[in-house]
Amino acid sequence: MKIIFNRRYVMSEDYRAMWQDLGVDLEGHDALLAVLGDAYRDIYLAQKNRPEAMAYFDFVMSEVHGLRIKELMDEKREGRKIIGSYCVFVPEEIALAANATLVGLCSGADFAMEEVERLLPRNTCALIKSSFGFKLAKVCPYLESADMVVGENTCDGKKKAYETLGGLVDNLYIMDLPQVKSAQGRELLKAEYLRFKDAVEVLTGVKITAESLRDAIVLVNKKRAAMHRLLALRKADPAPISGLDSLLANQIFFYDNPQRFTESVHLLCDELEKRVAEKRGVSAPRTPRILISGCPQAVPNWKLPMIIEGLGAVIVGEESCVGERGTRNLTDESGESVAEMMDAIVDRYFAVDCAIFTPNGERRDHIREMVESYGADGVIHYGLQFCQPYLMEAVPVENSLEEVGIPCLRLETDYSMEDMGQLKTRVEAFVEQLR
Amino acid sequence: MKIIFNRRYVMSEDYRAMWQDLGVDLEGHDALLAVLGDAYRDIYLAQKNRPEAMAYFDFVMSEVHGLRIKELMDEKREGRKIIGSYCVFVPEEIALAANATLVGLCSGADFAMEEVERLLPRNTCALIKSSFGFKLAKVCPYLESADMVVGENTCDGKKKAYETLGGLVDNLYIMDLPQVKSAQGRELLKAEYLRFKDAVEVLTGVKITAESLRDAIVLVNKKRAAMHRLLALRKADPAPISGLDSLLANQIFFYDNPQRFTESVHLLCDELEKRVAEKRGVSAPRTPRILISGCPQAVPNWKLPMIIEGLGAVIVGEESCVGERGTRNLTDESGESVAEMMDAIVDRYFAVDCAIFTPNGERRDHIREMVESYGADGVIHYGLQFCQPYLMEAVPVENSLEEVGIPCLRLETDYSMEDMGQLKTRVEAFVEQLR
Repeated sequence: MKIIFNRRYVMSEDYRAMWQDLGVDLEGHDALLAVLGDAYRDIYLAQKNRPEAMAYFDFVMSEVHGLRIKELMDEKREGRKIIGSYCVFVPEEIALAANATLVGLCSGADFAMEEVERLLPRNTCALIKSSFGFKLAKVCPYLESADMVVGENTCDGKKKAYETLGGLVDNLYIMDLPQVKSAQGRELLKAEYLRFKDAVEVLTGVKITAESLRDAIVLVNKKRAAMHRLLALRKADPAPISGLDSLLANQIFFYDNPQRFTESVHLLCDELEKRVAEKRGVSAPRTPRILISGCPQAVPNWKLPMIIEGLGAVIVGEESCVGERGTRNLTDESGESVAEMMDAIVDRYFAVDCAIFTPNGERRDHIREMVESYGADGVIHYGLQFCQPYLMEAVPVENSLEEVGIPCLRLETDYSMEDMGQLKTRVEAFVEQLR
Repeated sequence: MKIIFNRRYVMSEDYRAMWQDLGVDLEGHDALLAVLGDAYRDIYLAQKNRPEAMAYFDFVMSEVHGLRIKELMDEKREGRKIIGSYCVFVPEEIALAANATLVGLCSGADFAMEEVERLLPRNTCALIKSSFGFKLAKVCPYLESADMVVGENTCDGKKKAYETLGGLVDNLYIMDLPQVKSAQGRELLKAEYLRFKDAVEVLTGVKITAESLRDAIVLVNKKRAAMHRLLALRKADPAPISGLDSLLANQIFFYDNPQRFTESVHLLCDELEKRVAEKRGVSAPRTPRILISGCPQAVPNWKLPMIIEGLGAVIVGEESCVGERGTRNLTDESGESVAEMMDAIVDRYFAVDCAIFTPNGERRDHIREMVESYGADGVIHYGLQFCQPYLMEAVPVENSLEEVGIPCLRLETDYSMEDMGQLKTRVEAFVEQLR
């Protein structure tokens, strides 16, 4: 297996020049890549029994700020626009239909926290602080290369933080979102998606047509369908792939080239199918099976799965934006006009059971469905500290699982490593309970 | 002056029977009233140089759970409905037009925190925890007497907490609110106010007419106009009334009989006008003048004004829901049909510059206007811990004030007394800076 984040990569003069052109702070960025490389080696490459097809995802991660950024820069030179997003509510279909590329923005590590806490309250969730940290420290080439950055009114934290981020990022576009799944709420989402479509058309100078929109819908559906195949394979016992590796695919979903990503997920699935047929897994049969539910785990936030799987359990599903909440449900492809397809897009995204919606009983129902279909023995509810929507839902989620006799462990943490010992102790006790 | 919360009051058999009928927990309620009485005596009655007309407000406070509740019970016996509210976005005009009474619900003190924290994350703001505590401990006769309780989708904390409160309160009605002041946002508010009107009509069995709605608009406008007169008088130097006493009027605004309240505020203003003419104040001329801005201070949350005025400064305005943000702007009275007047109500409430809106630059502008018109020397930004919308806006507020050379102290606190020493030290240093 290729040694990732190697010296060649960090020192590549081509990449360094590219980063410098983008305004990336080279010194801070080197530090980030060094930490990222070490973490990846210790957490990912140290895993046993990995599918061979994970080599592709290792490569993508090794080139996360290298080759992929170069590809984006090449696209830009050809006149394509790059749109950065912080949320699964920003429809990739609309970007692609206007010949733009949508990329998820880095938010999974603490950076420049002192500077960040001059702008945001200390009691802000790690994800939001991280997005500010990457910007303030100038270490995210995705953000620096974006022609438009989309913020969305999901939680209070993000909604209000974008007001400040607008002063740091030139091209911040704000998308409003409903809070209730009412007729009025759907109207709001539709109006906002139409407004976003107009804005993207203005940005790219490309008019979205029925053909380009259908192609985009089909392309994104294929990417999701590939993930559905991967997720379905995790239902097997023994699980054919680790939660860490599945999470990586879910993370790379957000920024890789869509076609290539889809093909690579299918190659991985081909291998996993064989494993399942041969009853080979990453761990022994009857290993405690955990479903993670709650807040998103953005690159490189691998803290909790590392703890869980390090303690001998296996994660069989992620009820998360970086996971099934983000990838489930396809967009109806049968629309004939742009208007019909836009309606189909609204329907697809309006079904996302994010905790910003009230009430959100469908999320609790879906967690129970996932527990059943993935054969999970228990649920770990992953709450980022100060993330009010998911922390507020954690108690009802636990109660709902209790009703069907499924143990649930509610955790609240951030990106720091200070609580590792405490988390390990709690997860260990929970896993023991499931054996 | 009447000694409030006296033995007669707490022990009154009539009231005790009434509370018991309402399902109030008498033991917990006695404890609450005892603490409240002590606090009121120490904080309010200990003030020097109070306007004589404050005797009415003292009396109202002394009978906050007594006579006022008896009045509500009498109204209920006559077939009138009581609607409880947690927010200034619930239009009193609509309740009154349907022959219902709107009352603000208690949320200014910690109660039953252990039970509360089994339902809500520890990192929830004190106001929300308090509303749960009063319900769980059954110590709020307003809540217990309400035929309908209205929750609103303002912040994430409240929005998600109401999902759980719905399991504790039989008659919880949820009102959705916009997050952006767009045409779409106004449409949402209008649709929700029309839906609320329908729900109130169903509750009361009273059809709102153009006449009843106009009467209600006029009545609420008069109440607001009385407050505007009071606020305007505070512009004088020396300030004719303390911030504590003004806050009390702002708090009682939410639950007193509207006519009687309006008359009492005008009586107070008559007295204050004389004081202003005679250049008499509650403190010496050139006492440091403070504007409080930020989170609401619900009864009996008098902690911060007590500290500020205890240190020799005077509070000249509250940029708060329990203050000018809640009472400013009248509803246009010229509409002829119910539809026209409903539109006027939507316009009036849509102008509220709550931090749930994004962007919310008008709040920063209004704070600067208030500083100027009230002759404030400095602003203390009052943030309830974990209140993301106001804590997030605190930094931009401070920056905006800095631009015009006005000092701003950002505080973050809760309802506990543990940080009293630290707050006093910080406020003292701030006040010294203004002298």
